[in-house]
Amino acid sequence: MRDLPQPSAQALVPFISVADMMAIIHRVGLEAALRDLTDRIEADFRRWATFDKTARVASHSDIGVIELMPTSDGSRYAFKYVNGHPANTRAGLQTVTAFGVLSQVATGYPLMFAEMTMLTALRTAATSALAARHLAPKGARVMALIGNGAQAEFQALALKAVCGIDTVRLYDVDPAATEKCARNLEGSGLTVVPCPSAEAATLGAQIITTCTADKRNATVLHDNMIGEGVHINAIGGDCPGKTELAPALLDRAQTFVEFEPQTRVEGEIQQMPADYPVAALWQVITGAVEGRRDAGQITLFDGVGFAIEDFTALNWLYDQVHAGSQMLDVIADPDDPRDLYGMLMRAQRPKA
Amino acid sequence: MRDLPQPSAQALVPFISVADMMAIIHRVGLEAALRDLTDRIEADFRRWATFDKTARVASHSDIGVIELMPTSDGSRYAFKYVNGHPANTRAGLQTVTAFGVLSQVATGYPLMFAEMTMLTALRTAATSALAARHLAPKGARVMALIGNGAQAEFQALALKAVCGIDTVRLYDVDPAATEKCARNLEGSGLTVVPCPSAEAATLGAQIITTCTADKRNATVLHDNMIGEGVHINAIGGDCPGKTELAPALLDRAQTFVEFEPQTRVEGEIQQMPADYPVAALWQVITGAVEGRRDAGQITLFDGVGFAIEDFTALNWLYDQVHAGSQMLDVIADPDDPRDLYGMLMRAQRPKA
Repeated sequence: MRDLPQPSAQALVPFISVADMMAIIHRVGLEAALRDLTDRIEADFRRWATFDKTARVASHSDIGVIELMPTSDGSRYAFKYVNGHPANTRAGLQTVTAFGVLSQVATGYPLMFAEMTMLTALRTAATSALAARHLAPKGARVMALIGNGAQAEFQALALKAVCGIDTVRLYDVDPAATEKCARNLEGSGLTVVPCPSAEAATLGAQIITTCTADKRNATVLHDNMIGEGVHINAIGGDCPGKTELAPALLDRAQTFVEFEPQTRVEGEIQQMPADYPVAALWQVITGAVEGRRDAGQITLFDGVGFAIEDFTALNWLYDQVHAGSQMLDVIADPDDPRDLYGMLMRAQRPKA
Repeated sequence: MRDLPQPSAQALVPFISVADMMAIIHRVGLEAALRDLTDRIEADFRRWATFDKTARVASHSDIGVIELMPTSDGSRYAFKYVNGHPANTRAGLQTVTAFGVLSQVATGYPLMFAEMTMLTALRTAATSALAARHLAPKGARVMALIGNGAQAEFQALALKAVCGIDTVRLYDVDPAATEKCARNLEGSGLTVVPCPSAEAATLGAQIITTCTADKRNATVLHDNMIGEGVHINAIGGDCPGKTELAPALLDRAQTFVEFEPQTRVEGEIQQMPADYPVAALWQVITGAVEGRRDAGQITLFDGVGFAIEDFTALNWLYDQVHAGSQMLDVIADPDDPRDLYGMLMRAQRPKA
């Protein structure tokens, strides 16, 4: 192999594997990472106008969806690949897996490839915490967490780290999921209360988070379960035909969204008429629109996940990457950029 | 590190690096690979209706573009990331670099990551050969090749391997590019004729291929340079504001495209009225529309590159991949798919 040309430095792009990502999260600390991400998503939402915004590009099949979520701020470009396949868990696979790339706009060259299943769990939880920071009633300490799957613990810890939640009330249609979640949150500093029904979970909660995984129009929250003044983070309804809330509840709530054209198709509000009023979370953050008006109001963050959150997360990750990463030989880099063919020919093994 | 969990087989996805790609091309043989790819693109174009088709998702800046090109046939999903930055060559970087992913629709899980700068050069040349196979005048042996950059040798060899071209007449505004191309094609079996102008290059050519890289509306081919009966592969004009042909020439030609909605925006025909008539190459292949009518007709393939060609190329590549590839730990794969958090916690280094 000594005679073959070696890849140049420009050919090599850092790759953050699942193991690398977990090591970085542990080095930073999970709650610190969730706080960092919340602050950085907030900062990027403040400069909303600087981003290219498109609804994600979805390829739907009967049993799932594969999506590409690109955005750019004119200096950096990021995209995420993410799938959603609820039946995967029956085969021992993840419902949602993701990876992504951060690039330089000036050259189009990638700066970093990264796993994003773990990172998406963090940024989704951080976005919920950001919404609750701006919309939840003051002094909220108790959260109901309905759906205790892969996203649940991250939601609980982000709301603890960012909003000061001290109690989570858990419910899942599968008691094993609730047991798993309760066990994982032991020692986290949160008081964990497993509940026998969604209704029981909501008792005394000022914040209700729904993050169920079924791809269908389920009613996780009925109108009569929800009293005045709560804030709801509806996270699980995130594609066409997948919702969690009763329309009557949407009628009582003031609803906040990430990027309206995407949420109209994917969010809880897909059940509502096209003129159902919504406000943009980023405009609450900048102060352009009012968030929570009064203590009796029901606020709803209809979160579906938007490309800017992934852009923020990849940039956060890139700042954590030290020298010594695994490098991928992914960019063909001939000595003369016009001589791609010559590079190919020189790579041929010398004849014996 | 012995105490940390190791990634499972499901976490690992083969990665085809630039070096791997070059080794595969040499193992198959470049001309054999170009023939294979041409036949497989033809086969996929024949089943055009089975594919999801969307115009690529482009993020434009003043100096370039980054694009995502997804498609699916319902069984497999593929996308390519590709940039186009003509000024990159001045910094010793490639104008076009690319990578891509092939996935299973049933699970959304990736099957393979791959470099695609080299693979795009092959599939672009194979698509030109496919167009010429169906549109060029019978017995064509001489091709003019205008623009002698990174794509040029691949175009020459694909047209040789697939269509029987025996002579290429080269021209580039930069004589060094022509010298490079002529040197690289020594020993290929092609007669190579460097020419002092584009007009000189077209003399006696039955096929004219333009593959220049400037991002502007250049006129590489003027109307008065083109006699009757030739076939033109216009490859370089492939984004808004980047064209190579004079409108008067388009008026004389019968034009064939890949995916009309994309070509209207990106191709040579962006210069023409919205009702300028075009035909789809795939319909020529299936016989639904007529290709070349007579020996005097000018046929034009206004190639911009379409996602199905990348899908075909990635599937071809996947079939060449042997055991022993580099594997990327890119899929978070907890023992219990709902226990992503538990996986993260178990990855924490045991305390000393």
